[in-house]
Amino acid sequence: MTDTNLISIDAMGGDRGPAAVLDGIALAHAANPALRFLVHGRQAEVAPLIAARGLSDICSLRHAEAVVTMNDKPSQVMRHGSDTSMWSAVDAVRNREAAVAVSCGNTGALMAVSMLRLRKLPGVNRPAIASLWPSFNPGGWNVMLDMGADVRADAHDLLTYGIMGAAYAHYALGLETPRVGLLNVGTEEHKGTAELRLAHELMTGAQARGGFAFVGFVEGNDLPAERVDVIVTDGFTGNVALKTGEGTAKMASRLMKEALTSTWLAKLGALLAMSALKRLKDKIDPRRANGGVFLGLNGTVVKSHGGADATGIAAAIDLAARLARSGFLERMAARVASAAPAGQDAPSEEASNESAK
Amino acid sequence: MTDTNLISIDAMGGDRGPAAVLDGIALAHAANPALRFLVHGRQAEVAPLIAARGLSDICSLRHAEAVVTMNDKPSQVMRHGSDTSMWSAVDAVRNREAAVAVSCGNTGALMAVSMLRLRKLPGVNRPAIASLWPSFNPGGWNVMLDMGADVRADAHDLLTYGIMGAAYAHYALGLETPRVGLLNVGTEEHKGTAELRLAHELMTGAQARGGFAFVGFVEGNDLPAERVDVIVTDGFTGNVALKTGEGTAKMASRLMKEALTSTWLAKLGALLAMSALKRLKDKIDPRRANGGVFLGLNGTVVKSHGGADATGIAAAIDLAARLARSGFLERMAARVASAAPAGQDAPSEEASNESAK
Repeated sequence: MTDTNLISIDAMGGDRGPAAVLDGIALAHAANPALRFLVHGRQAEVAPLIAARGLSDICSLRHAEAVVTMNDKPSQVMRHGSDTSMWSAVDAVRNREAAVAVSCGNTGALMAVSMLRLRKLPGVNRPAIASLWPSFNPGGWNVMLDMGADVRADAHDLLTYGIMGAAYAHYALGLETPRVGLLNVGTEEHKGTAELRLAHELMTGAQARGGFAFVGFVEGNDLPAERVDVIVTDGFTGNVALKTGEGTAKMASRLMKEALTSTWLAKLGALLAMSALKRLKDKIDPRRANGGVFLGLNGTVVKSHGGADATGIAAAIDLAARLARSGFLERMAARVASAAPAGQDAPSEEASNESAK
Repeated sequence: MTDTNLISIDAMGGDRGPAAVLDGIALAHAANPALRFLVHGRQAEVAPLIAARGLSDICSLRHAEAVVTMNDKPSQVMRHGSDTSMWSAVDAVRNREAAVAVSCGNTGALMAVSMLRLRKLPGVNRPAIASLWPSFNPGGWNVMLDMGADVRADAHDLLTYGIMGAAYAHYALGLETPRVGLLNVGTEEHKGTAELRLAHELMTGAQARGGFAFVGFVEGNDLPAERVDVIVTDGFTGNVALKTGEGTAKMASRLMKEALTSTWLAKLGALLAMSALKRLKDKIDPRRANGGVFLGLNGTVVKSHGGADATGIAAAIDLAARLARSGFLERMAARVASAAPAGQDAPSEEASNESAK
């Protein structure tokens, strides 16, 4: 049986190199001493980092000669990447050594390797990447998917995203019956494309057996809203929305910083308000929500931000560990299979190619 | 010849009613005394508002019995809306009485009526709505289109959006050769849909005669960036991005307010920093950029936000007046026509229906 406390982790391929990954492992282990790690990477580079941090007891190192870079094309990695640390990390999930793999590497390549090695769950045509989005809900987060696994999604894919996103929100956010919304340019039923109107119909009918409550169409300004827990969209729109939100938040933070250093009085004011501003900064720290989860495969893969530091990597590991323990994959798989229309589970060559973003 | 100082304005249909529109007219006139107005709305309701503000000398009232509400379907308004103030306001541009019309009403209906009465420019298949987006560029704004005129756009539409957006940025932001970017999920040339890759090719080839410099693909986090002036996307993605940015900015502002009132020390700090924070608030005041411009028609229509107050309406009028004086419509029309592939100028029934969002 798979050890749910063992996390398979790709030590290479992140912007900050293997040292940041090992620092993240040390942090995650301090918070949760039961965790152990299968670490994939170059022996000569990674072994000294493990030893230097005194992590030899909790880390098994598996040597992989090659590294997937941010510039490698997913199709190339699929054909020639079997000696990479990313491939090795995913294969540990395939072989049931670990329940979850974590990587900071190239998103497109990680999705391609994950699809190739883990294969899609029955009933899933297009896997998706789910992320957490800061919200005014009591828990502070909404789930949004697809964030960019595939630039397209048809109505059945969107229904599947709703079911998978609801299962993820159930286990990651502890919500009994997550409320699912479909992203559109208006909330009236006649808005948007024919595909979205069909998805609306399918999701209305699938609520009960899909384990969610369907709230209908939502708009971009509902992403942080209290009226929804899971926002479903295609990977093109999701990716643009994610980066637009990040860009806007960064702009707001930069303008605020400029304002609070613009005069002596403002600087003094900022000094007095410092601890309140620090609490706000911690609350919205994007590192706390680090980790896009690949849903729809026979195994769970957590994609950490490429630029994640130790804190971010520890957050991704913590998410991976919670998912591994929850047994959410099996429950999600059962729900997807029960809601799938006939003929949706055949592997599709076209879909595999499209995922290579 | 059309009087470029005469603005045709729909007094009805905004969330705050005709009084806010007349207040906006008064503000705009105070800033620019040459302006005069053709005001469309219910005589009994609007005439006293004009008289009460002493605006009788600069406002001619044109009675229209009916009002388009926010819930009216565009297709209904196209068929039965000829007695509405919105229709009347657009018809004044059609009849060359005024160069520009301004309305706070229902966006979908306004676009439908504008397409029906003004007709598309030769070479334009899908008209677009262009908005200003706060940016780190010296002028403080980028142009983005389409913000929701049509949920779809093919590669030729995207090229046309680039040309129209560049002409708009030239006149509205005073940029000699605007830099145009195409919104995608990555900046590498192999990213995104086949349609986007074709648009990339078309835009690369059309830069010189289109009056812009093409910077290639841009991502959601580039929307406020300094590397681009005009961001081109389809109306579905543009609308989601716009509302996502608004939602994120509102969330940031609400969290900041909570933080600065959370303790006595924070409140005192906020008091000291107040004038700097006030300047920031003015700088990013969304009312300053009020006004989506409909591009691609034989006439210019400015859509003010439905909830705009007097300051917002005055900003929309100011934008309308600058566009009227610049003669940008003629120059844009010439550039679009020169870049259009053969056969693109036939009016398309399908496109007309699609715009009804």
